[in-house]
Amino acid sequence: MTSDSALRIIATNGADRNVGAVMREIGKRARAAARKVALAPAEQRNAALLAMAEALRARTSRILAANAQDLADGKAAGLSVSFIDRLALDDTRLAAIADAVAEVAELPDPLGRVLAEWTRPNGLRFERVATPLGVIAVIFESRPNVTADAGALCLKSGNAAILRAGSDSFRSSTEIAAAMREGLEAAGLPADAIQLVPTRDRAAVGEILAGLGGTVDVVVPRGGKSLVARVQSEARVPVFAHLDGNCHVYVDAKADLAMAREILLNAKLRRTGVCGAAETLLVDEACAATHLAPLVGALLEAGCAVRGDEAVQALDARVTAATAEDWATEYLDRIIAVKTVPGLDAAIDHIERYGSHHTDAIVTADEAAAARFLTEVDSAIVIHNASTQFADGGEFGFGAEIGIATGRMHARGPVGVEQLCSFKYRVHGAGQTRP
Amino acid sequence: MTSDSALRIIATNGADRNVGAVMREIGKRARAAARKVALAPAEQRNAALLAMAEALRARTSRILAANAQDLADGKAAGLSVSFIDRLALDDTRLAAIADAVAEVAELPDPLGRVLAEWTRPNGLRFERVATPLGVIAVIFESRPNVTADAGALCLKSGNAAILRAGSDSFRSSTEIAAAMREGLEAAGLPADAIQLVPTRDRAAVGEILAGLGGTVDVVVPRGGKSLVARVQSEARVPVFAHLDGNCHVYVDAKADLAMAREILLNAKLRRTGVCGAAETLLVDEACAATHLAPLVGALLEAGCAVRGDEAVQALDARVTAATAEDWATEYLDRIIAVKTVPGLDAAIDHIERYGSHHTDAIVTADEAAAARFLTEVDSAIVIHNASTQFADGGEFGFGAEIGIATGRMHARGPVGVEQLCSFKYRVHGAGQTRP
Repeated sequence: MTSDSALRIIATNGADRNVGAVMREIGKRARAAARKVALAPAEQRNAALLAMAEALRARTSRILAANAQDLADGKAAGLSVSFIDRLALDDTRLAAIADAVAEVAELPDPLGRVLAEWTRPNGLRFERVATPLGVIAVIFESRPNVTADAGALCLKSGNAAILRAGSDSFRSSTEIAAAMREGLEAAGLPADAIQLVPTRDRAAVGEILAGLGGTVDVVVPRGGKSLVARVQSEARVPVFAHLDGNCHVYVDAKADLAMAREILLNAKLRRTGVCGAAETLLVDEACAATHLAPLVGALLEAGCAVRGDEAVQALDARVTAATAEDWATEYLDRIIAVKTVPGLDAAIDHIERYGSHHTDAIVTADEAAAARFLTEVDSAIVIHNASTQFADGGEFGFGAEIGIATGRMHARGPVGVEQLCSFKYRVHGAGQTRP
Repeated sequence: MTSDSALRIIATNGADRNVGAVMREIGKRARAAARKVALAPAEQRNAALLAMAEALRARTSRILAANAQDLADGKAAGLSVSFIDRLALDDTRLAAIADAVAEVAELPDPLGRVLAEWTRPNGLRFERVATPLGVIAVIFESRPNVTADAGALCLKSGNAAILRAGSDSFRSSTEIAAAMREGLEAAGLPADAIQLVPTRDRAAVGEILAGLGGTVDVVVPRGGKSLVARVQSEARVPVFAHLDGNCHVYVDAKADLAMAREILLNAKLRRTGVCGAAETLLVDEACAATHLAPLVGALLEAGCAVRGDEAVQALDARVTAATAEDWATEYLDRIIAVKTVPGLDAAIDHIERYGSHHTDAIVTADEAAAARFLTEVDSAIVIHNASTQFADGGEFGFGAEIGIATGRMHARGPVGVEQLCSFKYRVHGAGQTRP
């Protein structure tokens, strides 16, 4: 509980002239804590995760009281219904947050894995082994659960976390972070392995993006486009992020219609607000005569607005005209853009031109076409005959994820505990010198 | 040969007001070429490499004539003897450059490797496969061979290269790049997969570091500290680089003296100018009585200046006093700092405090001490009972390398063709939708 006071060096709504100094101190503490958790055995890290889950449960009333204050302020400030919903906690949601932290303890240890091993003719034996990244800063909007999820994933992978919560969830996140820190201390690990930025001052974000004097190894933004865009444009340290999930379903000439319909409806409508939701349907002209009308009809019938090219507009008066902007838009809503294309090459070109390199799927019984699509579409995730909504760390079998990355460096696709690791080379000799 | 004219859009000594426009055009061409080489089969990329080697040989007289002009200018400008030596080409050096390019063709194809593969309970089969990074910008000082080495490694890994050569090697690099582009065209690949920045204007470097409108995926600086420091501080895109190679040899209590001496002399003196050269010797106090004098004596006898702590100074009048600055210095010269430490923990702490996370070695017959050193020293390469000068892509079995990285993201240690790759997930379904 001593951690609570350290956490509250400053807890202010207003700007603080000392935010730079406070943030540098946080960076220094994170670096020192990172070294300790990096070397802590898996059992100790897992014990801390279970103790965190326990502390979250034990602190239910405090956390919910803090959340009630956040909610009251948020309603008074006129925040939207969906915003308030993301912010709100109750007994059930908080129990789910605690359970999720405990589940991270059950994942296999990502550290120390031997990723490759070989011996050279001179007898030197090389191992490439997984190590922590170091200090991970997570900047997120007002979803209190991210405080727990991100802290747990960082600790599991032997990293220290600096968490910057959205201002409107500041009290809730502060109480959740206190529980996480209590769990660390209960397992004999430094509380500073998880630090919540103790100020709402937005200048703190700028400090993090500048790297806190070289102490931040990677920044992970979790939130809407404006947050991610700011982080990507300002960060002086590596970023794991995706800005857009403009995902495509391409229905090829040889697609089974029933399969295409199931996949399309699931990809577009299972949940429209997730980054793996399909935003554009491409249909091969070669099967348009048989497939286009049933697919567009199914979308309309399911309550999805359709914006299409001329061929699509000709099918149904409810279809509106798609513009070039539609091809590039991530609706995150019950809207889809539909285009007919003259075959596989045109589909790949369209995705290359308008896509966001996130997740794209082909539906076809033609293995050669599928192989070309999977090779030539330059996206983090390319799928044959399944829904784009499988773009999720849990569905990949990674356990929890901290997000999905569309960069090409280091982490691409779902970012789970393995992706929060770096590596080193261990070289075993018997006195070898280099000629 | 048509490529030569494209390459020479501008070839000027002075500043050019259009450098921004020229660089953006180079970025655009690189991005278009990257897509083509990414999808080119291994045979075609290898054929291009062999054609490049052939073109380098066929153009020997042109390249050497250009180099002679560079050398004449360099001498007139009063460049140092070592600088002129790095810049100078002759028949033998040029033949070695061509051979090195041909050898890259012999390396296994790094693309399409299945890095992991698994199937989920719902039948979805996942593959993680190696893909190119995209567009790699290499900024280097006046060593003409880098034009060929870097271009070859980038092409082998399916990437397009933007090469920015040091001004003093501009004519030599231009002729070498022309040969590389001829090789690309001879194999039916776009010449723009290897572009030399066609101006000496330093503003071009700033444009590259800003990412050329999102077309540069990674920047690799090859050169001295001031270049690397500029790149690291200004780059808005990921960088593969190392600033310092402050490498340590720690002689543990249980070290065999003869082995320690061999390893130490090799690590310090085989070549003093390489990043894997040892700069500090740490000796466990527990073996100082037997080991310190012979080790320091061997260094002095080999003509190495020794700067030591008090125990070391007491051994020999030629030893000068080491300051805190010495512990942090990468001499790249026949100088070593020597310190006695009270055991393994103190050695690890010293390396953590003063080291550069590059390459560090322990000499010991104590397996437990070695295991702790290899685990707890947070460097890209940690070595037991062998010389630090094995820090080299060739010695790792990677073939050629484009450099050694000390960052924690993506590439760490030697950067060979595998490290110039990204990856994607291929997901194979049979109509699965997400519940």
